[in-house]
Amino acid sequence: MSVDFDLVLVGFGNVARRFVDLLHEQRAALARDFGVSANIVAIATRHGRIASPRGVDARSFERARTDTAAGTGDTRRFLRDLLAREAFARRARAGRLVLVETTTLDIRDGRPAIDHVRAALAAGAHVVTANKGPAAFAYASLSAMARRAGRRFLFEGAVMDGIPIFNLVHETLPTVRVTGFHGVVNATTNYILTEMEQGRSFADALAIMQAEGIAEADPSLDVDGWDAAAKASVLANALLGARMTPHDVEREGLNDRTAARIAAAARDGRRVKLVVSGGRTPRGRIRARVALEDLPANDLLAGLEGQQNALILDTDLLGEIAIVQRGSGLTQTAYALLSDLVAISRSDRDRPPVRPRARRGRTP
Amino acid sequence: MSVDFDLVLVGFGNVARRFVDLLHEQRAALARDFGVSANIVAIATRHGRIASPRGVDARSFERARTDTAAGTGDTRRFLRDLLAREAFARRARAGRLVLVETTTLDIRDGRPAIDHVRAALAAGAHVVTANKGPAAFAYASLSAMARRAGRRFLFEGAVMDGIPIFNLVHETLPTVRVTGFHGVVNATTNYILTEMEQGRSFADALAIMQAEGIAEADPSLDVDGWDAAAKASVLANALLGARMTPHDVEREGLNDRTAARIAAAARDGRRVKLVVSGGRTPRGRIRARVALEDLPANDLLAGLEGQQNALILDTDLLGEIAIVQRGSGLTQTAYALLSDLVAISRSDRDRPPVRPRARRGRTP
Repeated sequence: MSVDFDLVLVGFGNVARRFVDLLHEQRAALARDFGVSANIVAIATRHGRIASPRGVDARSFERARTDTAAGTGDTRRFLRDLLAREAFARRARAGRLVLVETTTLDIRDGRPAIDHVRAALAAGAHVVTANKGPAAFAYASLSAMARRAGRRFLFEGAVMDGIPIFNLVHETLPTVRVTGFHGVVNATTNYILTEMEQGRSFADALAIMQAEGIAEADPSLDVDGWDAAAKASVLANALLGARMTPHDVEREGLNDRTAARIAAAARDGRRVKLVVSGGRTPRGRIRARVALEDLPANDLLAGLEGQQNALILDTDLLGEIAIVQRGSGLTQTAYALLSDLVAISRSDRDRPPVRPRARRGRTP
Repeated sequence: MSVDFDLVLVGFGNVARRFVDLLHEQRAALARDFGVSANIVAIATRHGRIASPRGVDARSFERARTDTAAGTGDTRRFLRDLLAREAFARRARAGRLVLVETTTLDIRDGRPAIDHVRAALAAGAHVVTANKGPAAFAYASLSAMARRAGRRFLFEGAVMDGIPIFNLVHETLPTVRVTGFHGVVNATTNYILTEMEQGRSFADALAIMQAEGIAEADPSLDVDGWDAAAKASVLANALLGARMTPHDVEREGLNDRTAARIAAAARDGRRVKLVVSGGRTPRGRIRARVALEDLPANDLLAGLEGQQNALILDTDLLGEIAIVQRGSGLTQTAYALLSDLVAISRSDRDRPPVRPRARRGRTP
């Protein structure tokens, strides 16, 4: 059975453009091994929009205007109008339309990405996103909406790029219950901490990251722990059944005082890492936090250099499972979207809907 | 869509018995979340056989006779006769009969497990096995046979118990090509090495493992590196497209001289680990080996304590991905069979057959 998807790209920055190239590079393998083909039928950014049921030329659009901004009311309206057009609506009803959401995270409320996802699901489209916002702020309602519609809402790229976390749990760990997690999931802060261990000041290490294009011009999303908090929220919502937002995550970041802490830890042979963790309190409440932790040198997380990431899942049947990302970059993030697309193609619509594995817990 | 499997258990030792209990414990979750149910219709060991199309009582059989031996001609004949009976053959034709092969590895040639697998596939049954032999000695021919029959031949438990390796690659890393691997995959030798670092002799450390029931009475399968070599062969065959056997794997084990090596490494702050690795030579040949390696303390593999295992996959699109097993035991191995059963239930028989991702290479 071959599956031909029509893709609506909202957001068209580096990740989306690399995704378009990756689709092209992997076209033969996707068709041969998975019976999947994909056709881009619309692209919308804050500055430009293009749509055609027969397909659009992403490369010529790219030359004209690219944009990573989170979109505006115009993008929302464009998407709503598009999904109302019969040519697109018919494909959505057939389960062949997919929203590929790659706008940047707005840490205040996850919007308008959440609106884009909701509009797509309401119209019968599947959704894949590399934006952490929708699952960090609205996982429960969006996944319930997808389940009712018989569609998928997937976000593998939200944590550790294309390294499988959510697909790992859902596709390869049937009946296993994840009871908690901890890990290092923000590459920029891990890089800065590694540089500071070499004696650089926080300000210098940050400046280097910015010069190399690794940290954003406004670095607070990374260094204040917001990116990690968003990922912790996604993990807690999707794996533990929480209903939290990044603002419910206890949060600590890096600052001028971090250098002294690193030096003190080093005297004991320990390393300081920015660790996310989540689990259930004895009273059944789900908690998640982002905190600097001093780890012994032989700890798996202590060994992470530069931009490496790792996540350790606590499970009922298999004990602790760790997955480590040792290389990172644009291809890895773009690949997450591709792997989610294949996951959709494998969805058996006759399969019983997947329910959360974890008991529902109260969240702060 | 619900899937009701009939299971034929060949081998009924600790792993199979834990699997039967696990099926029972997870019955509700399997039905609710995956639409899967399973009924045991036959059990065959060297010392006892029982079969009924309506189901057999594994627990009362268990009290009578349990056996981990690799089976004899009698088991082969029993299996052949069973699969010829119309009541079982009908279920096989419907894709609902599954051979659960848990006999122990015979490192000489992987038989009779290979014969059991072949007989099952020939009759139209799926196969799941925790025995490394079939994939270590005959992966290419058995997987081709399964593909032609439209059936699955799965062996997640062959490496790192129930931690997903093969299902990880096949279900969550579409179009990604694995180009090599290295890791620590034998728990017993890692435990012995850890004990020897505390100053115990090889003989004492081994005796402790045997007293605790971790090492076999005949420990050569573990300490001479044969178990690791069998796993390396499975990994090379299934992930790299090799056609090798454990006898093609370069192999080193532990012995009296290992203590001196550990002491010398420790003076440099390094740790000695029994590392399996595989990859392609510049001339396109696939090689695999098992060797003691001195690793720096911050190496991911160096940090593995006791029975912990880890495998690092080199990939084209995602760089290195490591997966670490931090707990191990009977449940983990038995779980591998359960996860394979769910993987079969998800198989879409209309999906194009999966071809090996890697270029076919010459093997020694």
